[in-house]
Amino acid sequence: MDKYQNLFNEISNYDIKKANVKELRELSSKIREYIIKECSINGGHLASNLGIVELTIALHRAFSFPEDKLLFDVSHQCYTHKILSGRSLENLRQENGVDGFQKRHESKYDPYEAGHSSTSISTAMGMALARDMNNQDYHIISLIGDSSIANGMAFEALNNNDKFNHKVIIIINDNNMSIDQPVGALHNMLQNIRLSPKYIRWKDRYRKHMEKNKFTQWLFSFTKKIKDGITHLIYRDNFFGTFGYYYIGDVDGYDFKEMAHAFKKAKKKKSSVVIHVSTIKGKGYNLAETSNVSSWHSVPPFNIEDGSIKDVLPENKIKLSKVIANKIEEELSKDPNSILITASTSVGSNFDTVIKNYPEQALDVGISEEHAVTFASGCALNNKHAFVSMYSTFLQRSYDQINHDVARMDLPVTFLIDRSGLVGKDGETHQGIFDESFLLNMPNMNVCMGKDEIEYARLIEFSRTFNHPLAIRYPILESEKTPYYKDTIEYGKWKIEKEANNKDICIISYGPKLKEVINLFDNITIVNAIFQSPLDEECLKSLLEYKNIIIYSPYGIEQGFTYHTFIKLMDLGYKNRVHRMSLPNKYISKGTIEQQEKRCHIDISSLKELINSIK
Amino acid sequence: MDKYQNLFNEISNYDIKKANVKELRELSSKIREYIIKECSINGGHLASNLGIVELTIALHRAFSFPEDKLLFDVSHQCYTHKILSGRSLENLRQENGVDGFQKRHESKYDPYEAGHSSTSISTAMGMALARDMNNQDYHIISLIGDSSIANGMAFEALNNNDKFNHKVIIIINDNNMSIDQPVGALHNMLQNIRLSPKYIRWKDRYRKHMEKNKFTQWLFSFTKKIKDGITHLIYRDNFFGTFGYYYIGDVDGYDFKEMAHAFKKAKKKKSSVVIHVSTIKGKGYNLAETSNVSSWHSVPPFNIEDGSIKDVLPENKIKLSKVIANKIEEELSKDPNSILITASTSVGSNFDTVIKNYPEQALDVGISEEHAVTFASGCALNNKHAFVSMYSTFLQRSYDQINHDVARMDLPVTFLIDRSGLVGKDGETHQGIFDESFLLNMPNMNVCMGKDEIEYARLIEFSRTFNHPLAIRYPILESEKTPYYKDTIEYGKWKIEKEANNKDICIISYGPKLKEVINLFDNITIVNAIFQSPLDEECLKSLLEYKNIIIYSPYGIEQGFTYHTFIKLMDLGYKNRVHRMSLPNKYISKGTIEQQEKRCHIDISSLKELINSIK
Repeated sequence: MDKYQNLFNEISNYDIKKANVKELRELSSKIREYIIKECSINGGHLASNLGIVELTIALHRAFSFPEDKLLFDVSHQCYTHKILSGRSLENLRQENGVDGFQKRHESKYDPYEAGHSSTSISTAMGMALARDMNNQDYHIISLIGDSSIANGMAFEALNNNDKFNHKVIIIINDNNMSIDQPVGALHNMLQNIRLSPKYIRWKDRYRKHMEKNKFTQWLFSFTKKIKDGITHLIYRDNFFGTFGYYYIGDVDGYDFKEMAHAFKKAKKKKSSVVIHVSTIKGKGYNLAETSNVSSWHSVPPFNIEDGSIKDVLPENKIKLSKVIANKIEEELSKDPNSILITASTSVGSNFDTVIKNYPEQALDVGISEEHAVTFASGCALNNKHAFVSMYSTFLQRSYDQINHDVARMDLPVTFLIDRSGLVGKDGETHQGIFDESFLLNMPNMNVCMGKDEIEYARLIEFSRTFNHPLAIRYPILESEKTPYYKDTIEYGKWKIEKEANNKDICIISYGPKLKEVINLFDNITIVNAIFQSPLDEECLKSLLEYKNIIIYSPYGIEQGFTYHTFIKLMDLGYKNRVHRMSLPNKYISKGTIEQQEKRCHIDISSLKELINSIK
Repeated sequence: MDKYQNLFNEISNYDIKKANVKELRELSSKIREYIIKECSINGGHLASNLGIVELTIALHRAFSFPEDKLLFDVSHQCYTHKILSGRSLENLRQENGVDGFQKRHESKYDPYEAGHSSTSISTAMGMALARDMNNQDYHIISLIGDSSIANGMAFEALNNNDKFNHKVIIIINDNNMSIDQPVGALHNMLQNIRLSPKYIRWKDRYRKHMEKNKFTQWLFSFTKKIKDGITHLIYRDNFFGTFGYYYIGDVDGYDFKEMAHAFKKAKKKKSSVVIHVSTIKGKGYNLAETSNVSSWHSVPPFNIEDGSIKDVLPENKIKLSKVIANKIEEELSKDPNSILITASTSVGSNFDTVIKNYPEQALDVGISEEHAVTFASGCALNNKHAFVSMYSTFLQRSYDQINHDVARMDLPVTFLIDRSGLVGKDGETHQGIFDESFLLNMPNMNVCMGKDEIEYARLIEFSRTFNHPLAIRYPILESEKTPYYKDTIEYGKWKIEKEANNKDICIISYGPKLKEVINLFDNITIVNAIFQSPLDEECLKSLLEYKNIIIYSPYGIEQGFTYHTFIKLMDLGYKNRVHRMSLPNKYISKGTIEQQEKRCHIDISSLKELINSIK
């Protein structure tokens, strides 16, 4: 039973189509309170959702969902929409709860699904073509953030508006905030137009004052109209005007009347419309609103009173991504020929301080994965060594650039692939399980994972002197601050971590899970395949007498390291039994990483079971 | 010995830094003649190269290559640059000749390599950062077409100009022409600015007239300055102004003085510059210039006098891509719920007439592979069946969209993947050899190839009723107009094309090469693996008694169908010999397809040798 069921029920009792502005404000407060409370239990994308409570309510008033279609770009900002369409946030992002993103199976109010940025305009346009071919008549709305719209794919969609006579409504939720700080020229242009947060707050008070009597109400509305006219004159030729959109902006995302007016106008237009709405990320939760870092974008469970995180990392633990970021900072300081490039996830991957400390050598290019990789190839062509930091799932966006611009020219670019393997609560759109297989199938590409911080440090040091493409993959992990031990790595060489006194079972594995394997199993030979590509043929040859070889590959689908190693063993004439344990080639839905590992039968217990079944 | 060596020598004798305008015009004519003659022998990207002869000369005059760096986007328009840097076009695009694209190993005048569109700005920016970190001082120029700059990746680079203080010079070669007709709103914006071809031609005459004496020369230059001032005032706030570029335009790409003036200005600026140059595709070769289709973009060997193609298809032959386009047209006519989407290759894949005949159901979205795929997912979400046509090599651009927006939601989108497998003269940047492996490693994705037109027709018919993602791959091929024969296909089912009376050898293969295999080999069992995914496990089980199984997969790298089938055979307990013949996981350089097949040992002779070695 949901702890906040009463609050949810209260919210459900509002008839938002009939409610007056005062009631809408009440409703907004309750929804905001509910979101904060539920997020404080299970974590979630707090700040972006708090920012658009009023905007979402206004949309639900102006449009008729689910007949009209509302597409949330990326869609982590759809909590109010979920609530208004009858979904409680109980167990948000838990295995048995509501998803953090729009999901078609959850509700007919979710006409689409995403998780990666900037897909909503293209999808909306495809849906609009289909609608018009059917002679149907409803609205299709893409709600997209100011950073997502600055991505190349969104641009391709905007650019396609030429000769495309199928109306969509694009709402830019401009909160002046991407996951991290927004970058890019388009963002500056939006900023020149948008309402400042100070102005929005002042206006809140001014509006309340002007609502006092009929005359002030008329005066407010009259001055508003003049302002609208001027704005349209000024901005009709702006960026969006160039692309043939009717531009309405800027609209105050906390002013129900202004939003109603804008949506009414947008509904009437025959052609596609861009509505530019100003909002404030974190609105209504002081700590999130005033925080100028992106720590409130996606939060773990927290204490509402002081914003403190519930499960603080113990003294002896540190995030693996932080270990890697620290090491990269060290490398940049040692080597002025090293460059770090991130694509909007600098905070997520703990590179924010590196970028601050090394502004000449480190930069965040925004949600521009394609540009980031080819930019790195340019650095490499001019004899620099570029590190490209990206989440595994977003690396998919730059498949062609990795292949065509880096691997083909065999350039020294090192990919720091964060969130490789299972990712937990973000679910199927964010799993970092495909890059291993596509990187292994690219010529000239080298791929590796360390079993602990020391190995990752050695791999990063190695990468700087390595003159070819290299991918260093690492999972979401709280890592131990282990004491330093002396260790070296050699290109393409695997390590025998433990050697049994018999030839019964050999486990070939890699990455941080290997540490558990080493600690758990005795009298089993354990091989650390630190390089997933190239394979260490010599080492494999030395294993041919084993009766059982287990390939334990928990960070990629079976078609990656497992297939490659299996075939190499066959080619070397291995005749005994190979047991393959890796992730299935499937989209794996939300849950904790532990739950997902169990579901996929790649947890340590499953490995134990397998070993017992052999013995 | 080059037939046109004399002409090349004459060109080499010009000192372009010292030449006067008259001599430059002479030089332009000679280069143009030389390009036409060499292209008439071996084919090549004729029209785009003819368009920028003067522009390239002007660049070589204004800048100091190779100290300054000139990056040609896509780079098929670099012929004049190759000539001016001392490379004859003898055997252009042949195995032993000069490459059709910029290639670093060919000359220090080629600082980068491409083949895919819209990578040059990102690369230039990376190079510029590296240059400035080294405190070096030279210019980096990206020369990019009006269609390439409208791609999402180019947009990401432009957008990154914000806070990026490393100067690059971007020259938009605006010939109002992509590979096919250009589309998109940005293109319209450019058109509103650009000089019309008529005006350019008129100006040619006017300029010659004004050059007659000192006074008219001064008058010409004075009026020009006034025009420049006005243009800058009007356009400084245009699209490129928004992104913080100093905009110089529009510049006549046939006026050496105007170009010199623009380049001088650009060199002086401290910040990044966009120079918008108007050119005419095909300039100087009447047939190419006046032809309004893209048939002169990439030409096979032709007769200069009348433009006729040298190797006309015989009566009984037809391009396989044309067969498929015809079939798709038939499907669109039968099924109003079918939609065709192409991404700038509608002419290349013979879909131009389909788009003309079915404007409501078929559209070309321009060089926007990412948008194209997600747009298709939108159509599918609204219950349409979308066909997406793309060359295999460009499909790489939409890896994430295929995975995240189509396969993840298991939507009925059918990919028509043209130029799958080896592509010949375009070489390593264009080989269609990677998509098979990455598609096979995507959940929910189904992949197939037909052995002939009839099978392709059946596969297309099947796709329309199939409610999941499907990739239909087809190679560059002149296909026979074979008589109709009755044939059906069943989802996931392979066919035994020939059955030997012994269990010695079985060949598993697919695609058009299979026809040759069937015709050539007797008393060998031949299996048509028409679906590369899913594998037909039942069929494979029936083959377990064969002493030798040959997996012959000439349309993808070994890590695709070959790995998958090999492992399935192992899993089914196959104990005898498997012989794997597929493309190596390498970048394969230019040559004829036959030469490339031979180099990769996947030609029919190699198959014969293998079979003889078994027998």
